[in-house]
Amino acid sequence: MNNRSQAAVEIARIGGELALEYYRRLGSLVIEDKGPQDFVSEADKAVETHIRNMIIAAFPDDGIVGEEDAPKPSSTGYTWVIDPIDGTTNFISGIPAWTVVLAVVFEDKTQIGVIFDPVHNEMFVANRGAGATLNGAPMACASDAPITRGTVGTGYSSRISAQASADVVLAILEKGGVFHRNASGALSLAYVASGRLLGYIEEHMNAWDCLAGQLLIAEAGGQIEDQSANQMIAQGGRVIAGGNAVFDDLLKIADTTYK
Amino acid sequence: MNNRSQAAVEIARIGGELALEYYRRLGSLVIEDKGPQDFVSEADKAVETHIRNMIIAAFPDDGIVGEEDAPKPSSTGYTWVIDPIDGTTNFISGIPAWTVVLAVVFEDKTQIGVIFDPVHNEMFVANRGAGATLNGAPMACASDAPITRGTVGTGYSSRISAQASADVVLAILEKGGVFHRNASGALSLAYVASGRLLGYIEEHMNAWDCLAGQLLIAEAGGQIEDQSANQMIAQGGRVIAGGNAVFDDLLKIADTTYK
Repeated sequence: MNNRSQAAVEIARIGGELALEYYRRLGSLVIEDKGPQDFVSEADKAVETHIRNMIIAAFPDDGIVGEEDAPKPSSTGYTWVIDPIDGTTNFISGIPAWTVVLAVVFEDKTQIGVIFDPVHNEMFVANRGAGATLNGAPMACASDAPITRGTVGTGYSSRISAQASADVVLAILEKGGVFHRNASGALSLAYVASGRLLGYIEEHMNAWDCLAGQLLIAEAGGQIEDQSANQMIAQGGRVIAGGNAVFDDLLKIADTTYK
Repeated sequence: MNNRSQAAVEIARIGGELALEYYRRLGSLVIEDKGPQDFVSEADKAVETHIRNMIIAAFPDDGIVGEEDAPKPSSTGYTWVIDPIDGTTNFISGIPAWTVVLAVVFEDKTQIGVIFDPVHNEMFVANRGAGATLNGAPMACASDAPITRGTVGTGYSSRISAQASADVVLAILEKGGVFHRNASGALSLAYVASGRLLGYIEEHMNAWDCLAGQLLIAEAGGQIEDQSANQMIAQGGRVIAGGNAVFDDLLKIADTTYK
């Protein structure tokens, strides 16, 4: 596992640097004759391909599941779950809130989670049972802060009704909390793990957006729901996560809002 | 005016660099024996005092209105409206989304608007009638993009009912849009002016959070409501702003939601 953990960090960094090159080209408006949407698709695919090739070179028999490309089956039991650019709307718009995400799943559990924010050079890493770090220093959820003392991240997916998404916002506000939506679910989860947000709630996320962040939060002393990683890979699922003092509130909001 | 415009940019840069020093100290957890809330109050006050002193040195008879300190009356007709750190919750949490904001009002209109994001070294500047720039290059709103093609920023103020805030989110989603709340209203307005967000809607903002951004948007080819700057300074008010293709939608949402 140690090998895969070190490799995951290295691969996220290299993938992130490639994504950052595309981001800077976008910023300087060199989009040639393509539209920005095609350009970001190209960036997404190029980064995913590069990440896949690095994984295949190091662990040729591991499985790979990514947002952009067909899954590669595993014969080792290990599966890499990757999102080359989480927060593509921000990426394409020039808003500096997007990340490269890698998770490694084994025996139905996420074993390694890495979220890299190349713009701010922040590397969030968790290994199951071994804690979570930000740029190598231990990090922790804001476990004692109740919902009235901070901000809760939420997301929006077109799979979900507008009413349910608005109801979550309402429920957070009615409990005296404040909501945050920065359009990168993985970055928001990393912010929960580092105590910058109190918690996160979203009715449906894909595995490549959430598995890494969920492990980060659990290893940073926070709470997440007990879910099958394989089922998340197959179908996605809801994500409720946060410090101890907000987790039950978020669970109640989810149970009453998402039906 | 040119003098004040150049001075505003210079003052925002120096104020931003001071704020950034505090932000980095916070990041390295050197909060001495104070709590983080006291620390951020100290940063806010220190930056506002420094900005005030620079304004007073250059334009001793201009008025100054700021978030932190008592207003200074004007005998020239010019009033500086300043927010030393917009997005203090982000600032204190280590989320890199906060800004230094300066506006100059004359004859009931905002004449100069400056929003500086020190973390990303982005200087957004507008002069009435002379356009808007980002780091010296002309910038423009995403004027042709309808609400279904991008993201709308919104804010939350404890002055407003939870229901109204959630209703705005619902209305944006029901029109096929997506919402964004990054907890720095001024930064969101700067993102509208630079085409990164389509528009912005909030029921109540204070003058120091919105006057600069509203001028940025108007000068970047977008639409804002016709408001008295003096009345905004006295009471604050609602902020509806965006590219031409979303402005009417946002106006309708505001008119049906904010009652």
